[in-house]
Amino acid sequence: MKELRIGLIGAGYMGKAHTIALQSVGAIFETGLRPRCEMIATSTAAGAADHAARWGWHRSTGDWRTLVDNPGIDAVIIATPPRTHLDMVLACVSAKKPVLCEKPLGCDAAESLRMVEAMEGAGLANMVGFNYIRTPASQLAKQIIASGEIGEVIQVTVEHVEDYLHDPALPASWRTRVSTGTAAGALADVAPHIINACLRLVGPIASLVADTQVIHTTRPGPHGPEAIENDDQGQMLLRFANGASGSLSFSRVAAGRKMGYTYRITGTRGALYFDQEDQNALWLYDAARDPSRRGFQKILMGPAHPDYLAFSQGVGHGTGYNDQIVIELRDFLRGVETGDAVWPTFRDGYEVDKVVEAALASARDRRWVDL
Amino acid sequence: MKELRIGLIGAGYMGKAHTIALQSVGAIFETGLRPRCEMIATSTAAGAADHAARWGWHRSTGDWRTLVDNPGIDAVIIATPPRTHLDMVLACVSAKKPVLCEKPLGCDAAESLRMVEAMEGAGLANMVGFNYIRTPASQLAKQIIASGEIGEVIQVTVEHVEDYLHDPALPASWRTRVSTGTAAGALADVAPHIINACLRLVGPIASLVADTQVIHTTRPGPHGPEAIENDDQGQMLLRFANGASGSLSFSRVAAGRKMGYTYRITGTRGALYFDQEDQNALWLYDAARDPSRRGFQKILMGPAHPDYLAFSQGVGHGTGYNDQIVIELRDFLRGVETGDAVWPTFRDGYEVDKVVEAALASARDRRWVDL
Amino acid sequence: MKELRIGLIGAGYMGKAHTIALQSVGAIFETGLRPRCEMIATSTAAGAADHAARWGWHRSTGDWRTLVDNPGIDAVIIATPPRTHLDMVLACVSAKKPVLCEKPLGCDAAESLRMVEAMEGAGLANMVGFNYIRTPASQLAKQIIASGEIGEVIQVTVEHVEDYLHDPALPASWRTRVSTGTAAGALADVAPHIINACLRLVGPIASLVADTQVIHTTRPGPHGPEAIENDDQGQMLLRFANGASGSLSFSRVAAGRKMGYTYRITGTRGALYFDQEDQNALWLYDAARDPSRRGFQKILMGPAHPDYLAFSQGVGHGTGYNDQIVIELRDFLRGVETGDAVWPTFRDGYEVDKVVEAALASARDRRWVDL
Amino acid sequence: MKELRIGLIGAGYMGKAHTIALQSVGAIFETGLRPRCEMIATSTAAGAADHAARWGWHRSTGDWRTLVDNPGIDAVIIATPPRTHLDMVLACVSAKKPVLCEKPLGCDAAESLRMVEAMEGAGLANMVGFNYIRTPASQLAKQIIASGEIGEVIQVTVEHVEDYLHDPALPASWRTRVSTGTAAGALADVAPHIINACLRLVGPIASLVADTQVIHTTRPGPHGPEAIENDDQGQMLLRFANGASGSLSFSRVAAGRKMGYTYRITGTRGALYFDQEDQNALWLYDAARDPSRRGFQKILMGPAHPDYLAFSQGVGHGTGYNDQIVIELRDFLRGVETGDAVWPTFRDGYEVDKVVEAALASARDRRWVDL
Ligand SMILES: NC(=O)C1=CN([C@@H]2O[C@H](COP(=O)(O)OP(=O)(O)OC[C@H]3O[C@@H](n4cnc5c(N)ncnc54)[C@H](O)[C@@H]3O)[C@@H](O)[C@H]2O)C=CC1
Ligand SMILES: NC(=O)C1=CN([C@@H]2O[C@H](COP(=O)(O)OP(=O)(O)OC[C@H]3O[C@@H](n4cnc5c(N)ncnc54)[C@H](O)[C@@H]3O)[C@@H](O)[C@H]2O)C=CC1
Ligand SMILES: NC(=O)C1=CN([C@@H]2O[C@H](COP(=O)(O)OP(=O)(O)OC[C@H]3O[C@@H](n4cnc5c(N)ncnc54)[C@H](O)[C@@H]3O)[C@@H](O)[C@H]2O)C=CC1
Ligand SMILES: NC(=O)C1=CN([C@@H]2O[C@H](COP(=O)(O)OP(=O)(O)OC[C@H]3O[C@@H](n4cnc5c(N)ncnc54)[C@H](O)[C@@H]3O)[C@@H](O)[C@H]2O)C=CC1
Repeated sequence: MKELRIGLIGAGYMGKAHTIALQSVGAIFETGLRPRCEMIATSTAAGAADHAARWGWHRSTGDWRTLVDNPGIDAVIIATPPRTHLDMVLACVSAKKPVLCEKPLGCDAAESLRMVEAMEGAGLANMVGFNYIRTPASQLAKQIIASGEIGEVIQVTVEHVEDYLHDPALPASWRTRVSTGTAAGALADVAPHIINACLRLVGPIASLVADTQVIHTTRPGPHGPEAIENDDQGQMLLRFANGASGSLSFSRVAAGRKMGYTYRITGTRGALYFDQEDQNALWLYDAARDPSRRGFQKILMGPAHPDYLAFSQGVGHGTGYNDQIVIELRDFLRGVETGDAVWPTFRDGYEVDKVVEAALASARDRRWVDL
Repeated sequence: MKELRIGLIGAGYMGKAHTIALQSVGAIFETGLRPRCEMIATSTAAGAADHAARWGWHRSTGDWRTLVDNPGIDAVIIATPPRTHLDMVLACVSAKKPVLCEKPLGCDAAESLRMVEAMEGAGLANMVGFNYIRTPASQLAKQIIASGEIGEVIQVTVEHVEDYLHDPALPASWRTRVSTGTAAGALADVAPHIINACLRLVGPIASLVADTQVIHTTRPGPHGPEAIENDDQGQMLLRFANGASGSLSFSRVAAGRKMGYTYRITGTRGALYFDQEDQNALWLYDAARDPSRRGFQKILMGPAHPDYLAFSQGVGHGTGYNDQIVIELRDFLRGVETGDAVWPTFRDGYEVDKVVEAALASARDRRWVDL
Repeated sequence: MKELRIGLIGAGYMGKAHTIALQSVGAIFETGLRPRCEMIATSTAAGAADHAARWGWHRSTGDWRTLVDNPGIDAVIIATPPRTHLDMVLACVSAKKPVLCEKPLGCDAAESLRMVEAMEGAGLANMVGFNYIRTPASQLAKQIIASGEIGEVIQVTVEHVEDYLHDPALPASWRTRVSTGTAAGALADVAPHIINACLRLVGPIASLVADTQVIHTTRPGPHGPEAIENDDQGQMLLRFANGASGSLSFSRVAAGRKMGYTYRITGTRGALYFDQEDQNALWLYDAARDPSRRGFQKILMGPAHPDYLAFSQGVGHGTGYNDQIVIELRDFLRGVETGDAVWPTFRDGYEVDKVVEAALASARDRRWVDL
Repeated sequence: MKELRIGLIGAGYMGKAHTIALQSVGAIFETGLRPRCEMIATSTAAGAADHAARWGWHRSTGDWRTLVDNPGIDAVIIATPPRTHLDMVLACVSAKKPVLCEKPLGCDAAESLRMVEAMEGAGLANMVGFNYIRTPASQLAKQIIASGEIGEVIQVTVEHVEDYLHDPALPASWRTRVSTGTAAGALADVAPHIINACLRLVGPIASLVADTQVIHTTRPGPHGPEAIENDDQGQMLLRFANGASGSLSFSRVAAGRKMGYTYRITGTRGALYFDQEDQNALWLYDAARDPSRRGFQKILMGPAHPDYLAFSQGVGHGTGYNDQIVIELRDFLRGVETGDAVWPTFRDGYEVDKVVEAALASARDRRWVDL
């Protein structure tokens, strides 16, 4: 059992999730490498010190480069806004540190490609934080589709819709600004998760046509009303390389949808349905059953399903959001240990970013775009 | 209580549904006009006579023109394949008979327009059989949206997907042939219902981009394998005149979906969700409630909701498929009685057919189409 | 196709349901006997005449004995409060008329037994109106259990709970009065349906212990507050003759439950779940499936299930409350036609009433009671 | 931030859950005391050493007394079969160590009372591991009921049913043996959780009548078929001190139910429903809403609900089984820190055990039992 000294940049939403996961992943999965919460960096030294004390990190810094360059750090987790990822990743490459970077990888595909090439060039383990695809249910979905159990995939209806910015009184932030965030709004914030699911579960996207909208054109800013620069919602039609077609919705203003990451995948022999709001169930339809016994079956996750047993011996006892990060981290640790690339790599993140960029272009030009 | 002598053309799936509805609508809604099952026509005299005996029609004929021209018939219900609608409707206009015609109204928008103009010119009551929009739940949805209760509609995700042709061993029929059916497949067979719902609940569609596919390229025909001529499935992006955007899926090969007519309508103050497979419930989200008490509310239909009380005094006791036709018929009877046009009129059917036609063009040319 | 001239007593909640069913059952099931809505009786001549006009009955009377004795009536449907059933049934026996009587058959088991013996003695077709057990889903449940598909039944958890008297401001009525209703309240009004389901699906009940309560001790009466005389809610433990055990809840004050007739039946090889609020689905669990593919399967009713096809060719299109009465009536007509007893006969109603009576005794004496 | 050196006895199902929780609770809740995984004990020294290495405990022992008496241990978690609890607890009292003990507290109420008196006499923090009641949803249920939001509770329908021993081929174990487990089977293994929920959410139980059954009378034992000594399933009727009545089911052989801990609590103004298989949702019915807007509302847990924010800022992102233990542990740490008794204390465990014992007596004597 060897320790891996982790440096974490960012102490927001995801900084905390990674901290929690780092502390329990070893016991849960009995990993070869055991992570140690070595150093945390945020925008300020005081903030970092405070979070270190509260969350149990050994050291802290207000300068992320200090963290990256510190010889006492073996691997880095980047949990800061996308605008910062490129510099941080390139610094990690220089410092020869494996990286787990939050999604979206870059602010655009060009940035992502630079990161991919740098990491691959340096031969460092690298991973993008697409955690939702890590649930036992989504892993089972992958197995079922790959095995041919539902036949060839023909139609795919997916969405990642939430309502975290539904209220127009919620302030502008890096998420709504191109300068500090990305040109895409919900399209870069939530859609990457479900685009990644499409690529993982169904395969490459060959072409798409997209439409996006800003719903609330201003939000309170630090200096009064601030114009909103990127999309609140949108949808696209997809054609997959394997011939399947489908549609994808995304939103940050979808009233009532809290974790609306859903996929319905129809095949020539059956179908699957998943809703992240009920993340411990996968619905499976088998068209070969007797007509009087056909119907979607609600399979509750349990020890018979991928990665579940490590969390609980009891079927249906359930995993939650943070457990997704634990599974992600287990894979990242394995990647660092073996030196192997572990899915989803930066390249996978780049593939997602290309889809986002194609969608932006399609929405702008109102036309189908090939990938 | 005056009798209205009905002539019905067609004794298939919908012929039976209309027969059932005709016999009970009077007692259920205590209608002013009471329909009498006067004469039924099918393709053959023997078949018609047989159905008359089994279903309780007073007379029968193997020639629909006999029925239309018969002075003992006051109004006509057309429940035959779309390819036959134009001739029948024009004959009814000549004979000055009000018509309730099954969907889709025409084989294309041009046909529909001819029918609209003929009926309107003659000042005859006319209606298209969009029954799904008749449920108490969908009527309630209409009320809720119209009242502004969920604010301005911003995103619309809808589908009408079934799996009645999922199995490639199912034979070709008028539904799969352009010559006897329509150029559109599922797009003309199931999609019209949900397009109609969009128009009813959200308003006119300004533009769309569509994609369609044939999944099973041949099916057993009378003379061996027969090439399938129209779409099995597809999807479109929609822009509504009021600024909302959305997506629509349709399919006749959607494994596991039996009556997958669903709509999710998101507004600036709340949202609605409906699934026809659970037709007695409407889900409502009110964004104005206290954050700790927010959530989709499952409203079971009851006497407090449109048209429910006539069926039952008990909340949640439930209406079914045939009850939709009863409601439709009640409105048609009212239209005949008052001479007023009753929604959805042929013109509404025409509006739907224009969307279908735009979708065909869009799919063919792979571009956005304005309506 | 022979006509059967029906006399209906009662024009309330159930009077209307029977009227609707009478008018469409012939077309739906192509019955041998076709019912004719001949004569309706209510408490007053004017009321009866009014209902006849509105609902399409040929004749009417304010005196039910006139109806029963009328030679132009071939069979009688009794849809009046339980307190009136005994006299009416005995009169029908004298007049040699087959009877379909609403539940509960008698005000107590002794009354029921008198009716059973009279009808059986006269060899007349007789049936009790347990309509909920008529849904395609509950018929399928019966088939599945009888076939051994879920093994031996071991535990049964059922309820019939509604909230039609939840509001204490709702007035007293025959339902709450012993003098005009029954000594049992919800126990005689809703519980009989689910007791009947237990007997049908699982078999005879060997012993029980029950508990009942009045929640709202007074309600508005015609002369001010009126003391409530029978139970608002209760529950019982059951032991079945076949060794299974279970519990049963009933209520007329169960806030939020509209048609809460649910059963969960667990066997040694699987389990079933049904909820009348979603009456077109039956949930089936098969314990023999591979552990990674186990889960309750939501089977939507369709033509492959009992009695569905007559209503619709489309799976999941759905039946509703009144369709249950149609199925019931189809069986009653068959019984009249063949002279055979058709389940559930008066004797079945008596078996239910014995359970109700045992529950009353058990609740009063706070002890287990054998049946 | 002070460390608390924890000793854990037991490395089975619950031993692992406590280990995981111990490692992340500090970061999640920023607790005053930070637990340190100091020493673990199991039945054998080798097993303990192995688990220590795999799970990250600093020391290990094959003799739990060594652990309890070790001055380097500040508090003890007991996660061994019930038969061992009494000795361990008494030893902890002698050693002046606060204890978190798994449920059921004792093998019978007398044992539990001894433990209560010993702990209370010594003034040590003590808690029983009723984790299910810790979910944000169940805490919210408690708040809602306590605030009077659903009025006075009138009917309570609850269950804790699973199918972990549904298969008769599963071997006998301490769970099925009186000598090493408890006289009650499922009644002592799963029922305590839901009894505890009743006491917590509704209040003291005044009387009950219970029924229990062994379904599989033998199971494979180490020396061939072994007779099963305690109940597989059962149910009871409950009367609460506040006048509410209800029923409770429990089972370890309930095919298809994986985590069937559900409660439906009906009040004079509304109702609540919860199902642990969908642990991130609470269903609330408000009878005061307009009749056309009434229905159960599915509230997804989020930062507005008890203890959720510490896990995630996102509504509906979800907590899982192990997070329940984290919340439990947070409270235990607080109890140790402040010296205060923290609910549910040993006394609460004793109250549950009294209900279990009353149920055993009731089932044996087939009569109502007062508590
Ligand atoms: N996988 C998932 O489920 C989620 C992923 N994310 C992703 O995680 C990343 C972070 O998002 P949140 O945690 O929501 O953001 P946040 O706004 O909650 O926190 C950002 C953190 O980054 C720190 N930070 C920003 N600039 C920095 C700099 N130059 N140097 C050091 N620290 C800096 C801030 O001090 C703050 O602690 C984003 O890429 C986002 O897209 C966010 C939420 C969920
Ligand atoms: N509103 C709804 O839910 C549904 C509507 N439909 C629509 O109803 C119409 C009929 O469809 P189905 O009933 O499914 O068809 P079907 O194939 O079951 O029955 C068609 C009937 O029309 C008769 N027919 C055909 N050509 C005729 C002619 N020249 N003269 C006299 N009778 C003729 C046939 O004999 C047959 O009785 C179509 O427009 C279809 O799109 C169909 C199913 C559901
Ligand atoms: N199967 C089911 O789902 C249901 C069954 N029922 C049962 O149906 C029966 C009737 O109940 P509701 O229709 O709800 O009652 P209701 O109060 O709505 O109607 C009762 C009808 O009986 C008539 N009536 C009463 N005494 C009469 C008399 N002496 N002579 C002639 N007519 C008389 C009244 O005028 C009224 O038309 C009861 O036995 C009840 O338990 C009621 C509701 C649902
Ligand atoms: N709160 C909850 O959700 C659950 C609670 N439990 C409770 O947790 C307790 C343990 O159950 P499981 O973990 O399922 O049991 P298990 O059989 O999985 O593990 C028992 C552990 O106790 C150890 N052990 C037994 N006797 C010992 C002794 N004399 N000295 C040291 N170690 C000893 C065994 O070596 C083993 O590691 C029980 O009281 C059970 O009722 C169990 C499962 C779920």
